Amino acid sequence: MTVSKTAMADSAKGRKEPVDGAAGDAAALEMGELSELLGYSLKRAQLKVFEDFLRCMAPLQLTPAQFSVLLLLDKNPGRNQTEIANTLGILRPNFVAMLDGLESRDLCARMRSANDRRSHILVLTDKGRAVLARAKKLVATKHEARLNELLGPANRVALLEMLAKIAQDF
Amino acid sequence: MTVSKTAMADSAKGRKEPVDGAAGDAAALEMGELSELLGYSLKRAQLKVFEDFLRCMAPLQLTPAQFSVLLLLDKNPGRNQTEIANTLGILRPNFVAMLDGLESRDLCARMRSANDRRSHILVLTDKGRAVLARAKKLVATKHEARLNELLGPANRVALLEMLAKIAQDF
Repeated sequence: MTVSKTAMADSAKGRKEPVDGAAGDAAALEMGELSELLGYSLKRAQLKVFEDFLRCMAPLQLTPAQFSVLLLLDKNPGRNQTEIANTLGILRPNFVAMLDGLESRDLCARMRSANDRRSHILVLTDKGRAVLARAKKLVATKHEARLNELLGPANRVALLEMLAKIAQDF
Repeated sequence: MTVSKTAMADSAKGRKEPVDGAAGDAAALEMGELSELLGYSLKRAQLKVFEDFLRCMAPLQLTPAQFSVLLLLDKNPGRNQTEIANTLGILRPNFVAMLDGLESRDLCARMRSANDRRSHILVLTDKGRAVLARAKKLVATKHEARLNELLGPANRVALLEMLAKIAQDF
């Protein structure tokens, strides 16, 4: 971080003026070290991508987390709640609440495991499978296609690789 | 997304086995399209980076959002609550709660604006400035240095550029 002080100042000056709803006449704020902080940049990009995801998915009313659960259930039928929640890094109480929501919309079902009566096996319903198919199409054609266009295919792959490296090895 | 079906399957196979606390004997789940979803990858990487940030910042008990507020106040003294909250994309109720916390720890202060009595001007206290200086050092030497090592300086710059592009133009 020794060389970066000047780079920070430069990139802060280069930033687009942030949207400032109430006080439209206010000059842009000096971002300082913030624009060089990877965590901050990750969070801002993630929020932007999730916003667009929700917009694209409005007809189906699925959040990114709900979509990821349906995807995993489809690929891994008969796994239990703990396995799905752990794989997605979702905390148990949040996951239970999410499943309640998906089950009340008849998108997935919880069944007692034949091997372990204390454990719940998760499966997609027929409606869940149909909704997932439509959701995948929306994600691919509306959401990911636009990201692909913005970044270019090669950069998109490079970005995914770096993010996977951070998630796995940091 | 037409060519990516095979790439998806390949990269899913190539993934490290996810950590599965309770059921250690369970085989890794098939991630399918998830590992190709940019939003999902962003979220996983962001969570990992925030976890490490909190670990590095444990001696000072600052969250990433609190740190970013202190940084902005330092660079932009005398701005009002709305400007700081809007710049960081923090919702008003959350921001008010965060300021309450920072103020109770004597890290920042709210003062009535001389120009507009309805508006609150935010300033760092002396203690806030001292804590921020220590925090910056911890972030640079513990947190960002490790990220730099993991990614390499060139990749880190490329990553920041792509994230900024997404945050600004997507």
